[in-house]
Amino acid sequence: MNENTNKVQFQQLFGTKIKELRKLKKLSLRQLSQRCNLDYSDIAKYEKGEVNIQLSTVFELSKGLEVHPKVLFDFDFLFNAD
Amino acid sequence: MNENTNKVQFQQLFGTKIKELRKLKKLSLRQLSQRCNLDYSDIAKYEKGEVNIQLSTVFELSKGLEVHPKVLFDFDFLFNAD
Repeated sequence: MNENTNKVQFQQLFGTKIKELRKLKKLSLRQLSQRCNLDYSDIAKYEKGEVNIQLSTVFELSKGLEVHPKVLFDFDFLFNAD
Repeated sequence: MNENTNKVQFQQLFGTKIKELRKLKKLSLRQLSQRCNLDYSDIAKYEKGEVNIQLSTVFELSKGLEVHPKVLFDFDFLFNAD
């Protein structure tokens, strides 16, 4: 698996984690967006791993989901040894 | 403390954590940059919290430091209730 696939996969795993946490909290996309400075349609893209988001968005998602930022990265991920 | 201070503080805490991990591994900026696709002068800026980095850079830093991405976010951080 080459470098870029790895990065895209990382982005997708992060997105899946966001969705998992949102569902756990029984929040719709709109409800989550109202808890942080993010648009619900953007959050939908983040959950599909379509956006290479920035730290400021990680911050907003943590705030909206009321979890520490490290929880957003709590998923299994193996770096492929090149 | 207003919203933006919070975000800048978050960025700085993240940067401090990167530096801490790099020192723990006894790596210079150049040595770390050789382990991932990042320029050493950029890494120096990240460590000072000067850049709102993207997930792809989080990925590279984790690879270079050989730690799971969630370790990069393992620092104390309190969201200020607005």
